[in-house]
Amino acid sequence: MNKTLQKVILIPDSFKGTLSSSEICAVLSQKIRAYFPVCWIEELPVADGGEGSVDCFLQAAGGEKITADVHGPYNEPMQAFYGLLDGGRTAVIEMAACAGLPLVEGRKNPLLTTTYGVGELMGHALKKGAKHLIVGLGGSATNDGGCGAAAALGACFYNEAGQQFLPTGGNLQHIARMDLSQLQALLQGITVTAMCDIDNPLCGEYGAAAIYAPQKGADPGQVELLDKGLQHLSNVIRQQEGMDIALLPGAGAAGGMGGGCAAFFHAALRSGIRTVLDTVDFAGKAVGADLIITGEGRLDSQSLRGKVVAGVAEAAPPHVPLIAVVGGAGEGAEAIYDKGVTAIFPINRLPEDFAVSRHKSRENLAFTADNLCRFIRALIG
Amino acid sequence: MNKTLQKVILIPDSFKGTLSSSEICAVLSQKIRAYFPVCWIEELPVADGGEGSVDCFLQAAGGEKITADVHGPYNEPMQAFYGLLDGGRTAVIEMAACAGLPLVEGRKNPLLTTTYGVGELMGHALKKGAKHLIVGLGGSATNDGGCGAAAALGACFYNEAGQQFLPTGGNLQHIARMDLSQLQALLQGITVTAMCDIDNPLCGEYGAAAIYAPQKGADPGQVELLDKGLQHLSNVIRQQEGMDIALLPGAGAAGGMGGGCAAFFHAALRSGIRTVLDTVDFAGKAVGADLIITGEGRLDSQSLRGKVVAGVAEAAPPHVPLIAVVGGAGEGAEAIYDKGVTAIFPINRLPEDFAVSRHKSRENLAFTADNLCRFIRALIG
Repeated sequence: MNKTLQKVILIPDSFKGTLSSSEICAVLSQKIRAYFPVCWIEELPVADGGEGSVDCFLQAAGGEKITADVHGPYNEPMQAFYGLLDGGRTAVIEMAACAGLPLVEGRKNPLLTTTYGVGELMGHALKKGAKHLIVGLGGSATNDGGCGAAAALGACFYNEAGQQFLPTGGNLQHIARMDLSQLQALLQGITVTAMCDIDNPLCGEYGAAAIYAPQKGADPGQVELLDKGLQHLSNVIRQQEGMDIALLPGAGAAGGMGGGCAAFFHAALRSGIRTVLDTVDFAGKAVGADLIITGEGRLDSQSLRGKVVAGVAEAAPPHVPLIAVVGGAGEGAEAIYDKGVTAIFPINRLPEDFAVSRHKSRENLAFTADNLCRFIRALIG
Repeated sequence: MNKTLQKVILIPDSFKGTLSSSEICAVLSQKIRAYFPVCWIEELPVADGGEGSVDCFLQAAGGEKITADVHGPYNEPMQAFYGLLDGGRTAVIEMAACAGLPLVEGRKNPLLTTTYGVGELMGHALKKGAKHLIVGLGGSATNDGGCGAAAALGACFYNEAGQQFLPTGGNLQHIARMDLSQLQALLQGITVTAMCDIDNPLCGEYGAAAIYAPQKGADPGQVELLDKGLQHLSNVIRQQEGMDIALLPGAGAAGGMGGGCAAFFHAALRSGIRTVLDTVDFAGKAVGADLIITGEGRLDSQSLRGKVVAGVAEAAPPHVPLIAVVGGAGEGAEAIYDKGVTAIFPINRLPEDFAVSRHKSRENLAFTADNLCRFIRALIG
């Protein structure tokens, strides 16, 4: 290794409920700068698709934040934003920007809310020339299976009487027929990635309505209605498009937006980390790094599949030390070594229950980063 | 630094209530050997004066374990042991070997127990030619102010009637006069170090009887009697020898043995770590080390004075990385950096209360050691 740290890559997951990925990057970065002032630090905060995802991508890849006049969850006019990366070829949209829960605080009703504005943001990016749309799912106030977004991009939905209407969670079961020709023409040559870190199917016991609609304001009767609506939507899609999204893992993300993205936009459903690794050119950026720091709230045997640390380890160049700072290292965490992780450093400064230590995450992380920097400096200096 | 670890010094304190210093050395050593097979590892477990101190010194400095026929806490014949180090010039005696609590299990009575055997072990070592005696205080079943040990080495104690007797905790107040001439002749040219990590004075609210006699079997009335006895002993010593041990920090160690060692043997009272650092030639052994690992159950602002990590840091050669593995790093722990500690690594793998994690100390330490070794190998390899 060099006699000092010259290049470090920071690519941590958030510590759920305590620190965002950007905050973790900031803490690590500050400590590294203090001990290695001339070190080049790449901060690649990992977006999960939810609120803040656009900022994560802009921070990690650079680009432009675009504002656009769209419609909100209740179809009211509003201003929202998205990110243009990669010279304008890639757009990153977080659906929370115009269909998110904070926008309906005090008036939650997943029977009536729409993802129409999300489709408008996508359309805005397409007009700007974007060829690849990344749609971050998460934090939505909707349960419309993505019909609103599809409608904004030209999809037409008709009821039994042949009348066109805008489906929302509460009237999905009235969809008798869809005309996707205009939508499909618009998306010719466009790739869409739907980004989410959950595996829920569209319907049923673990579906969008059953698991997530209550926090969007649905009572048990409404949950049942929403679930039936999504089931009906998946039937229409299966019959008309020959695609079965009912059990697709991730279809249940964001009120069925995961399934809608797959059906309407032929989107690939990908985890945050896979999307970030591809989009920000992690492999390219990591070349010549002296150290890569990733992290996760809790590393254990479950972390081996699809989570951030495992994803980073698989994509990292060999022979670059890769450490994981973690909130906790549970049973089986050691299996991550075989994926390429050099070492795991939990941040627990004191033996304290999470109920206590969760309020100290930032200072505990700073302490750990400080000591790692001190140790590195002593070892290689 | 070298391209591998060639020489590592391990000199941790025990983690109170969970792991002994030797156990910590063993865990660290095993991990280092696994990653750096040709590394020279010096294990210098830190003795605290209590049970196991002789073995610590023998492990750290090399030497011979000597057994001797002496007398136990109730003056019954028994076999005990001590260590001869440094070519026989230094003897290490742990008083627990013949005056320890485990020897009186089921028959505890600090009014009657004696340190006579401790004096016999000292005498045995002197006959073997030892010139420096280290007496480890701690874990004693006695409260005789060291009068028994002094008697075994020639001190004579007389009551008001001029009759010679062997003082124990319950009859210290009958000492009217002492004759220390024979004892002092025997100890001519001999240095004695009394080793203990507590600061209690001989008598009073924080004295030997008040704080420690209850665990030796004394009820409140007996505690008062024992305290009065020690007070009387200190008066006799002050009047006859011109030395006031009543408030001497550490005089209250081991039922007043600390004070007795100071008065009868002109012993210096030293902490375990200072005694170990001097006795095992830490400074000499640390020359050319690539890494020193120390540790403590809990590092905080209190650790700066007289504790193991601070002591090691002060004595360690500059420019050798020195890390502290700790059970917890409390408020103010960072002040230890100024003493020379490179970095602190707490062993808490998960956010867990000590009530839970104390049962996992060994595996948590092993996990931390494993990850440190992996990280070192990646950084310097």
